[in-house]
Amino acid sequence: MNTTIETILNHRSVRSFTNQAIPEEQLHHIVKSAQAASTSSFLQAYSIIGVTDPNKKKKIAELAGNQSYVAENGYFFVFCADFARLQEAADIQTKNISTAIESTEGFMIAIIDAALAAQNAAIAAESLDLGICYIGGIRNNLKEVSSLLETPANVLPLFGMAVGYPDSYQEQKPRLPEDIVFHENRYQNDKRQTQSSLLHYDDSILEYYRTRMNTKKEMTWTGQTSSTLEKTKRLYLNEFVKQKGFLK
Amino acid sequence: MNTTIETILNHRSVRSFTNQAIPEEQLHHIVKSAQAASTSSFLQAYSIIGVTDPNKKKKIAELAGNQSYVAENGYFFVFCADFARLQEAADIQTKNISTAIESTEGFMIAIIDAALAAQNAAIAAESLDLGICYIGGIRNNLKEVSSLLETPANVLPLFGMAVGYPDSYQEQKPRLPEDIVFHENRYQNDKRQTQSSLLHYDDSILEYYRTRMNTKKEMTWTGQTSSTLEKTKRLYLNEFVKQKGFLK
Repeated sequence: MNTTIETILNHRSVRSFTNQAIPEEQLHHIVKSAQAASTSSFLQAYSIIGVTDPNKKKKIAELAGNQSYVAENGYFFVFCADFARLQEAADIQTKNISTAIESTEGFMIAIIDAALAAQNAAIAAESLDLGICYIGGIRNNLKEVSSLLETPANVLPLFGMAVGYPDSYQEQKPRLPEDIVFHENRYQNDKRQTQSSLLHYDDSILEYYRTRMNTKKEMTWTGQTSSTLEKTKRLYLNEFVKQKGFLK
Repeated sequence: MNTTIETILNHRSVRSFTNQAIPEEQLHHIVKSAQAASTSSFLQAYSIIGVTDPNKKKKIAELAGNQSYVAENGYFFVFCADFARLQEAADIQTKNISTAIESTEGFMIAIIDAALAAQNAAIAAESLDLGICYIGGIRNNLKEVSSLLETPANVLPLFGMAVGYPDSYQEQKPRLPEDIVFHENRYQNDKRQTQSSLLHYDDSILEYYRTRMNTKKEMTWTGQTSSTLEKTKRLYLNEFVKQKGFLK
């Protein structure tokens, strides 16, 4: 164990921040950390938009489902899949890369690149005693978020990240048992064992929600996740992602 | 600055490892670190397969484009998008979640979840003085890799990660200038400025490839990336991803 792994294992999403701004130098370290992540074929197929304009933050908070911590935090990032810059590179070289941009592979590359960069930013921020919360909620209204941030063709905002000085900490939610997430040499597809493991995990999540400090509830993991996924969300994305030039 | 950020900023992909195995305790820390990452709606929509079987590693190395370090390393991980476990949860709860699994949103969630977990694993490994290299090459032949690892419906291997004690280090490749990746409040879409910035970056990449220790070459960033993307790869993925139950 070391301080880096301690930082990683100590993660919990922070959903309440003080109004203290993050010093410029720390922001710079966070962005540099994001850029240091691995990137597929050196493409660096992502961009980061830092949102500080209070009106834009407020608007994004509304669009993302009225989560106050989207507007009230030390800083707000939006991570985007970005092939627009690579299109510029191809224009300079007079090459045609549209098939790659429109391919499933291209979409996967850009999402993975953006997510690796974002997680570096998250760990860097947490190592500076800042808290973070990923905001998938921007995908509730990605068309409006894209307009607000003026992202052009071939640039797709993927998720936000609120960063700041924590006003309060939540408890850590217990993760799935390691033996159900981690497989050796082959995917363990024993349905009886999986079901038994999930029911056991349900007990620990039920206990967690019953006894945690804030917003106690009666909820299991299989109950929560299947309810979330049953209420299918964001089906417009299929069309919007295509409009932005991906997954054609 | 702190040791965590130093670790992050010191990253370079390692493509040559000693044969020394990674101690069990360190592996455990790496997997636990992966699981500690944020996850969309608590879904944890990914799985990790640890590959130690020398025959399987050798086969994956061949499938991934004959990269020797895929077979010769301390440990090899494969990160997968995984909705099979969530399908089990839905079965327990007798809910229908197939629309969510098949949606663009579902695909994005699973890729992002897997990538955040993977980057935590990477940073944890590097903090233990191990080296890592992401292996997108498994997507050259994902059907065969899936068969080898016996991944069922709703599980899609995304990328591998070789981990181990570095035999040699590469130099760090300079990243894109911060001002072209990082935008404030709106996406900066000034083509002239972007082109000028890219040409300047081309100079520094040309200098890097000319003067680095190993495999010197004459190559700019716009030249390299546009050539890579012009030779469109992995177009079969669109069909295979659907076969596996995603993006329908």
